Amino acid sequence: MNIVIIGGVAAGAKAAAKIKRLLPDANVAIYTDDTHVSYSSCGLPYYIEGNFTDYKSLLVRSVEEFNASGIEVYLETRVDKILVPQQQVLVCNKDEARLVKYDKLIIATGARPFIPNIKGVKDFSNIYTVRKIEDGINIREKMLKSKRAVIIGSGFIGLELLEAFVKNGLEVEVIERNERIMSSFDPDMSKLIQERLETIEPRSFNFHTNETVSEFIGTNGEVNFVKTASGKEFETDLVLLSSGIVPNSEIAADAGIEIGESGAIKANKLMQTSVPNIFACGDCCEEPHLISGHSVWVPLGSTANKEGRCAALNAAGVYTVFEGVLGSAVSRCLNTTMSMTGLTEIEAEKFGFTPVSAIVTKNDMVSYMPEAGSMTLKVIADKVTGLLLGGQAIGALGADKRINSLASALVGRLTVREFGKNDFTYSPPYSTTIDPLLDAMSILCSKIPRHC
Amino acid sequence: MNIVIIGGVAAGAKAAAKIKRLLPDANVAIYTDDTHVSYSSCGLPYYIEGNFTDYKSLLVRSVEEFNASGIEVYLETRVDKILVPQQQVLVCNKDEARLVKYDKLIIATGARPFIPNIKGVKDFSNIYTVRKIEDGINIREKMLKSKRAVIIGSGFIGLELLEAFVKNGLEVEVIERNERIMSSFDPDMSKLIQERLETIEPRSFNFHTNETVSEFIGTNGEVNFVKTASGKEFETDLVLLSSGIVPNSEIAADAGIEIGESGAIKANKLMQTSVPNIFACGDCCEEPHLISGHSVWVPLGSTANKEGRCAALNAAGVYTVFEGVLGSAVSRCLNTTMSMTGLTEIEAEKFGFTPVSAIVTKNDMVSYMPEAGSMTLKVIADKVTGLLLGGQAIGALGADKRINSLASALVGRLTVREFGKNDFTYSPPYSTTIDPLLDAMSILCSKIPRHC
Repeated sequence: MNIVIIGGVAAGAKAAAKIKRLLPDANVAIYTDDTHVSYSSCGLPYYIEGNFTDYKSLLVRSVEEFNASGIEVYLETRVDKILVPQQQVLVCNKDEARLVKYDKLIIATGARPFIPNIKGVKDFSNIYTVRKIEDGINIREKMLKSKRAVIIGSGFIGLELLEAFVKNGLEVEVIERNERIMSSFDPDMSKLIQERLETIEPRSFNFHTNETVSEFIGTNGEVNFVKTASGKEFETDLVLLSSGIVPNSEIAADAGIEIGESGAIKANKLMQTSVPNIFACGDCCEEPHLISGHSVWVPLGSTANKEGRCAALNAAGVYTVFEGVLGSAVSRCLNTTMSMTGLTEIEAEKFGFTPVSAIVTKNDMVSYMPEAGSMTLKVIADKVTGLLLGGQAIGALGADKRINSLASALVGRLTVREFGKNDFTYSPPYSTTIDPLLDAMSILCSKIPRHC
Repeated sequence: MNIVIIGGVAAGAKAAAKIKRLLPDANVAIYTDDTHVSYSSCGLPYYIEGNFTDYKSLLVRSVEEFNASGIEVYLETRVDKILVPQQQVLVCNKDEARLVKYDKLIIATGARPFIPNIKGVKDFSNIYTVRKIEDGINIREKMLKSKRAVIIGSGFIGLELLEAFVKNGLEVEVIERNERIMSSFDPDMSKLIQERLETIEPRSFNFHTNETVSEFIGTNGEVNFVKTASGKEFETDLVLLSSGIVPNSEIAADAGIEIGESGAIKANKLMQTSVPNIFACGDCCEEPHLISGHSVWVPLGSTANKEGRCAALNAAGVYTVFEGVLGSAVSRCLNTTMSMTGLTEIEAEKFGFTPVSAIVTKNDMVSYMPEAGSMTLKVIADKVTGLLLGGQAIGALGADKRINSLASALVGRLTVREFGKNDFTYSPPYSTTIDPLLDAMSILCSKIPRHC
């Protein structure tokens, strides 16, 4: 039995390890065009920031470990084509091309940074994206010699790199095409994130929203100036492109595998694609949303791991279902935790709910504790049924705790009123007497008809 | 309409404020034998430790604030008797006794420290309990002049004071009658708490389990030595008694109000006692356990607040139900968070479940993050139904987050398998890729029949 896995960062690495344990006699091989396998891409911002000095900390399993457990790993080896009728893949490295037979194929090709079409974007060596190990190493090396940086895009990755750059003493300009930063949050919460970050003093960064980059200008192969459509010009030593990612789904599309509306691969809850014996998992494929029921593309490391495991189990003949995602996510930028789960108010409306929401701002613990910090919670429910739909929390470190409590309630399909029964832990270093999440739910409850 | 409230720390203070808002024309009066009203008793250990210097930070609402909103507060005024047929209470202060008429009476008398019957326990001025504002002030004052302390009892309060004393440079001996510290946890978890605390270096404290105090020996009105039944003798500058609390339910019992098996007042979900027009709330009364359905006595500040609110609403004629508690609790001792919700394995057995459990020890965040710390999670389910029953988490700060995620699932009556769908936030400073709670649930799932 030949198991071929394309890609080996999170989903692919997990799938390989799992399937080899399930089918010890199978030939399991990972093909990846990357120079590394099985690493924490999510940890790159923290490596760049300098939380730890050896990038090898990011490696989960080494090639040697894979080999020792009987898994072949082919680095810098690209799979160029899937030949469906023949159950073969065409693999190429710099020396040779060959055809490899598969009984089960697992596509875990991940995603890649979106490169905006800006004049000069391909001409300079100090324009970076952050996705692979080399990216981290290169950015850190350059950052340590830099005084100024421009970050294009202000989503999770953009703001994580903002923290890294600011903590390393750089002056940073963040340029965002949208009218607000962190646009995966609802507008009211995005606004608060920006306001909160802008209270930091001294502050060595600026946000420029509603602003697009028109041109990179440089000398000797390096960008020195970033020009915007509105005529601003920022001097810089390096540029980070963080304006989103795109799924590596072309090879699947080329093989006739069904692709979702998002551009990522469509897989069912067994991680099977539309083509027999071909599975997909991780950042290259869509997943069902547990609240809306719709297929969504939420490429995250935690999901990739679960999907990799699920694909491996089903490829090995062990029936297993991956139910879907809530879209739970968290990120830290300087003094601010940004965390969310379920649907935003905007998404809820789009999916046909009648969202109603409540917002509270409170300390995450009793105010006399020196570590107490402010946070803002937004909770969202459906006015027709009273069902909880989602929430967002920003601010102090403890914000994330409330989002995970909410995630469990979303999985349990609780109504706001049912959630009100909740009994959270209380002690001054951990919470206020009545947890802020319960306060938010009380307000939300008053906006829901009594029969729900 | 005369509303009389006996006791004004948490439940009583909350009830008073709430009912005055609901019934602005009613006469609302709080009678308390305490010198203070409306304060955070839970914050006393952190005041003693020195997290803040002004004890007034512990006060939630001052007498003046109560008065300004039209609520009378009688400090150092004891209610000695409830005259049920006459709907009156007998109140006494040092100068006078008088009878006060009530239309609705709310008993919020709280609890008091249990004083073990040890030779000399009443003879010395440096033997303390921690419950009231003066206790905190007195202990802190004495602690700052002390080198050694003995703590008797190793529950939440004992260990919180251990932290306070150790952080202030004292050598501390903790004496525990049971075979293990923190016996509200399951034995395996208690053991881990002790082991974890004992890894601290340098360590200026010792635990002595299976040990009872036989005598206090002192001179000039101060204890100098604590003698144990096994013949040990500890020199000390102060003694803290923290061997539990007892409900102040005598006045209710005396009035013929039904008392529960725990010794606390029995109230229904509207916080009504067995006598019309008399409500009870807070640490003096029992509450239903959301998992077992049984009446339990879990005296905690968060519950007191909720019950005070519920009592006020029903006393004012607004039908409101307090559904009960999960027994969620958290405490910090030095480097260790100790947190729990739902039933322990021991309680689960007692209540007729067939508990099965899983334990995992993992970091609370990705190990390459400098703040990462180890934690141990125990999750418990019923083998017959697959329903989650409870959990305990000890270790790094992030332990508490997992317990609150579990609390939401308990409120939703989720099975282990349903919980497995959960989608928690992930980012290196907040979690491991697959949250430790999901790992624990995977193991637990393998112990539950497939049809559950």
